[in-house]
Amino acid sequence: MTATVYLVGAGPGDPELLTLKAYRLIRTADVILHDDLVSEEIIALVATHAQIINVGKRCGEKKITQQEINQLMIDYACRGLEVVRLKSGDPGIFGRLAEEIDALESAGISHEIVPGITAGIAAAASTNASLTDRRTSSRIIVISGHQAHGHAIDRNFRAAPNDWHGLAREDATFVIYMPGRDLAHLRRDLLDAGFAPDFPAVIVSRASTPDQREWVATLAQLDAAPPMEPPSVILLGRTFARANRDAAASVFAAIMQETQDSNRSFLFDLA
Amino acid sequence: MTATVYLVGAGPGDPELLTLKAYRLIRTADVILHDDLVSEEIIALVATHAQIINVGKRCGEKKITQQEINQLMIDYACRGLEVVRLKSGDPGIFGRLAEEIDALESAGISHEIVPGITAGIAAAASTNASLTDRRTSSRIIVISGHQAHGHAIDRNFRAAPNDWHGLAREDATFVIYMPGRDLAHLRRDLLDAGFAPDFPAVIVSRASTPDQREWVATLAQLDAAPPMEPPSVILLGRTFARANRDAAASVFAAIMQETQDSNRSFLFDLA
Repeated sequence: MTATVYLVGAGPGDPELLTLKAYRLIRTADVILHDDLVSEEIIALVATHAQIINVGKRCGEKKITQQEINQLMIDYACRGLEVVRLKSGDPGIFGRLAEEIDALESAGISHEIVPGITAGIAAAASTNASLTDRRTSSRIIVISGHQAHGHAIDRNFRAAPNDWHGLAREDATFVIYMPGRDLAHLRRDLLDAGFAPDFPAVIVSRASTPDQREWVATLAQLDAAPPMEPPSVILLGRTFARANRDAAASVFAAIMQETQDSNRSFLFDLA
Repeated sequence: MTATVYLVGAGPGDPELLTLKAYRLIRTADVILHDDLVSEEIIALVATHAQIINVGKRCGEKKITQQEINQLMIDYACRGLEVVRLKSGDPGIFGRLAEEIDALESAGISHEIVPGITAGIAAAASTNASLTDRRTSSRIIVISGHQAHGHAIDRNFRAAPNDWHGLAREDATFVIYMPGRDLAHLRRDLLDAGFAPDFPAVIVSRASTPDQREWVATLAQLDAAPPMEPPSVILLGRTFARANRDAAASVFAAIMQETQDSNRSFLFDLA
């Protein structure tokens, strides 16, 4: 009997942000194939009988190819073992989910997608902000920083160079995944596209985990951010003016003084 | 002692798509203030001692104003009762979260946002599709259909008329919340903006629930969809070509024959 492959979102890191369904499947799976970014606390939930395989690729260093991941899912399912393919965040957002579904469909393996809390949504919640606000922010643009820089993602696939020009609207919220380290480049692209220098910007690293860090600033100050651990997302939009205001006004004023090299922006730790 | 207000995402409807954290808070809250769209199965999880208040506004018919909702949260918290403000999907996406945070902050009430699975992400997962695909779809645009039609959302707030012209890109995925019933208007706006008539389109009603319905089509066929129960979302993008192909090819061919009035598109039921 061939088993089912579950393509499951592990959420942003906090085990409590797993869905009940993801939790149940992680607890009962025979095989877990997980990405590098899935947190240790979540891997610790896996049943003792289960096989746990890290199929992560990080910073371009491939331990295992996409084709090998596909084949592992198929092989285990064909042996009748229930497979959970565990991806950080939501599997359908920048997760190569479509390629894995293609492989499973070609092999005739039944499969089910279980959505998860994606990093951008967790980042907004953890900074006490709403992604939309009918007074200021009426649409959300989710984009990958790798593409935003016009870099090819993979030589095997067409990578459309991103242009920001159609997007420079005051009433939009931007969520940039995988922003990379070249924030000066990103800042210049956005200013060139007509975004306002005072457009509120928040960088959130490791949202929802004890290691969460935030950099609250404006677009003009974006490249003054200190290096932050991946995964991180950049949030841009008038709806994040609250973060600037709150932080500047009160709680974090003391911390701001300690980071004088931060060019009027500042880093703080929610932990 | 003033208690904390939790602004919690209830997810798309399936109780198993609650996060563990939302589940815990719903089980232990003293007061639940919930929207109309939160499912009965989720309300059934509330503790027996808790007060449950439906503060929903539906189809513009207001039972209770936003200001009254804000005041209820504040009053209960000031009485030391733990409040869960339960919103369908994710609270930060088209949920008036920002206004409720403003009210709580003004009143000095501590609060925490708990993210949820938003309807668009659930809709893609439940139709076996990925929102992004590095081969075809590299950005996601989340938009409200009410604004897409240029209608004012509320006379008290500026509602920027949506234009689609900067957005007509083959490599983008569109998630349209609250599309309304005037799909002919939406179809015309999108075609006028330069979207291809064969751009894949999927309407998903009541994603993740036993009542889930889907209409799988193309942009040109969008307005041939039958009326579908709210909440529904429209997904547009090349990444949904799979849904067209799968459906046309095999499983639902029989159902398609039964709906001859459907203009080469068709409705099916996952239940």
